[in-house]
Amino acid sequence: MTIDRAHCQQLDAQDPLSGFKARFQPPQKHTIFLDANSMGAMPATVPARLASFCTDEWVELRRQGWNHTEWLDRPRQIGNAIAHLMGAGQDNVVVCDNTTVNLYKILTYAWQSRKSGSTILTEDGNFPTDLYVAQGLNHNHPDPPEVKVCASRDELIDSFNTDTAIVYLSHADYRSGECWNMADINHRAHAIDALTVWDLSHSTGAIPVDLTGDDADFAVGCGYKYLSAGPGGSAYLWVNPRHAEYGWPTICGWMGHQDVFAFATEYEPLSGAGRHATGTPAVIANEIFSCAAQIWQEVNEKHLWAKHKALGDLTMELLEQECGSLGVTINTPREYEQRGGHIGFSHPGAGPVSEALLAAGVVGSFRRPNSLRFGLGPLYLSYEDIWEAVSRLRKILESGDWQDAKYQTVSV
Amino acid sequence: MTIDRAHCQQLDAQDPLSGFKARFQPPQKHTIFLDANSMGAMPATVPARLASFCTDEWVELRRQGWNHTEWLDRPRQIGNAIAHLMGAGQDNVVVCDNTTVNLYKILTYAWQSRKSGSTILTEDGNFPTDLYVAQGLNHNHPDPPEVKVCASRDELIDSFNTDTAIVYLSHADYRSGECWNMADINHRAHAIDALTVWDLSHSTGAIPVDLTGDDADFAVGCGYKYLSAGPGGSAYLWVNPRHAEYGWPTICGWMGHQDVFAFATEYEPLSGAGRHATGTPAVIANEIFSCAAQIWQEVNEKHLWAKHKALGDLTMELLEQECGSLGVTINTPREYEQRGGHIGFSHPGAGPVSEALLAAGVVGSFRRPNSLRFGLGPLYLSYEDIWEAVSRLRKILESGDWQDAKYQTVSV
Repeated sequence: MTIDRAHCQQLDAQDPLSGFKARFQPPQKHTIFLDANSMGAMPATVPARLASFCTDEWVELRRQGWNHTEWLDRPRQIGNAIAHLMGAGQDNVVVCDNTTVNLYKILTYAWQSRKSGSTILTEDGNFPTDLYVAQGLNHNHPDPPEVKVCASRDELIDSFNTDTAIVYLSHADYRSGECWNMADINHRAHAIDALTVWDLSHSTGAIPVDLTGDDADFAVGCGYKYLSAGPGGSAYLWVNPRHAEYGWPTICGWMGHQDVFAFATEYEPLSGAGRHATGTPAVIANEIFSCAAQIWQEVNEKHLWAKHKALGDLTMELLEQECGSLGVTINTPREYEQRGGHIGFSHPGAGPVSEALLAAGVVGSFRRPNSLRFGLGPLYLSYEDIWEAVSRLRKILESGDWQDAKYQTVSV
Repeated sequence: MTIDRAHCQQLDAQDPLSGFKARFQPPQKHTIFLDANSMGAMPATVPARLASFCTDEWVELRRQGWNHTEWLDRPRQIGNAIAHLMGAGQDNVVVCDNTTVNLYKILTYAWQSRKSGSTILTEDGNFPTDLYVAQGLNHNHPDPPEVKVCASRDELIDSFNTDTAIVYLSHADYRSGECWNMADINHRAHAIDALTVWDLSHSTGAIPVDLTGDDADFAVGCGYKYLSAGPGGSAYLWVNPRHAEYGWPTICGWMGHQDVFAFATEYEPLSGAGRHATGTPAVIANEIFSCAAQIWQEVNEKHLWAKHKALGDLTMELLEQECGSLGVTINTPREYEQRGGHIGFSHPGAGPVSEALLAAGVVGSFRRPNSLRFGLGPLYLSYEDIWEAVSRLRKILESGDWQDAKYQTVSV
């Protein structure tokens, strides 16, 4: 069957999530943003929330905000509002710091609480900052782990052995979008007494994540991609309750103290995952994230995942149908269970094609040497948007316009 | 000489910084905020900056913001704009993370780069989160430092010995406002081969700080107090250039990599203090901080410090003149060189008096059991504001209104 625009419109008419598109602020021109893997859309309530925050809370309350507002409770509230997207229990997700700091805190905590082994096992498809955090631990820690960076998924699986202390992976590859089977990896790791640390930055809010059901040990993730926390918004971390009381957190700070405003001289960790909070939360950033959290808590995660799957299937089918004969090859696995939040594809002129797409109002992203990515935000993308984006890509490829000199300056 | 309102008005007329008051948004009612030690005033440009950021950058650019804006350069820009307030060189101040995370990063780095000794020397007047970070290092680090928490300043000075690895202090006490002589402590520390780590949260933007001239080793500080970065805004850190290339940072992340967008598999630290940046900067929070940074870079630090001294002198003189016979006693040292950013004073009914002051439109802050603090933001407070605030305090104390039941519920 050939897919046409009318078919896409029909899918939109049947979409149980279609009402959520209006909860996000649309761009002025009809730009189609396929970059939820880099930056999620803005909840429509953000500008008004910021305006009232500035006058009512910052200007009029000033330091009284610490006592008379929800500034200090937001990290817990937001964590609870997004917990169902990752199969986490209430009060186990803590919104704090950025992803790198959370990776460091959690990986160090996992290293200190390891059962056996001396190696952190990872792959070179893990996001660079994830790798740097592990390398830093190897370089700085007086009792350092070895870090084994595998060049392929097969090599990683083959490397599981009794020396493995921690398996440390991005759930979805930031380039290809390929996804690990989390349950399988957790099972294999536990069989050799290893712990797992997952980076969910490219999965939560797009594909199914079930930390509890799949028996993960630790996880962290980014707020500003699929979760729409806003540029540089807070990240989050999750600790399996069985590890929550193991020991002191890596960074002992007042927001992880049992009684923050006792101003006690001695540190006493808060019970549970909350101890991994550090210092003063990013209050204004969290006000923005809480606009997104209000939306997320209304979203049925099964509907979300089904829509994301359908958008991904449609994207791949349309890329092949419309652009397959024009040099486009899909990178992302066909099997849904192996896919992350975005669809990756390659083209010999991917860099300039990406620039020409931007000029035509389609925002994807380019990765050297020759791949493009379409990150799919299920709450604010329609099926017709996918049709329109692929149509614009086809026109560019057919016309050869991307070979113009003006498209040769390529941004990352 | 008895000070009166007219005298204060005369001081305002001669104030070279008086023009800066208009750069901050005034509260609607004539509330006098004396809480710069907890939360600085809002630069007037913030609401418009946030509104344009939301539409022009988040909604219209989305992920293109990483390439086409200053999002990633803000930490350096803001650091340079505030460097003169602390005697720091260009590109040595990095705006990142919160104060607790920066304390952890810097204290751990100092511990790893220590010259000799095995003890971190501090005092119980150091802010709780500072103490917790040190206790966490003692608890978690495989090669742990001892942490000696001295009960008095004399005890701390007497404890300097060859076993001292690091002297770790808040420049100004968050309760009494008492300030250390930074040059003297650095000198004493270096004489025994110890390093110094300073928390400037209660001093930068209020009193003279000269990290370079006073030969400090490391410093961190809070953005949202005197510096007006906004609730939960980014903190900063400073590394003496002689230590900048010592080794890898505590947390190795992509923003401290030599080439962020190379997405290299191997970590290579950026040269200089910038390596201590971690993950994605708090983009929106930094847009807010940059509104304050635009003001700070126009401020002559000598004028700032002179005004702060004059405001502090006036506050103490008026508190004694107007309220000395009504039970008020000054806590903060008289000598300017020993004073931090706020003036502390005690009263037997400090808790309810603080509540009554709030009701009368004077926002100070209370610390158990019986002290009050007036934090002085020199850019937006006039001398007449101090007159007015102390007058309101006097009226409350004279009338005994603070003994009403409604003032008995005390916020921290």
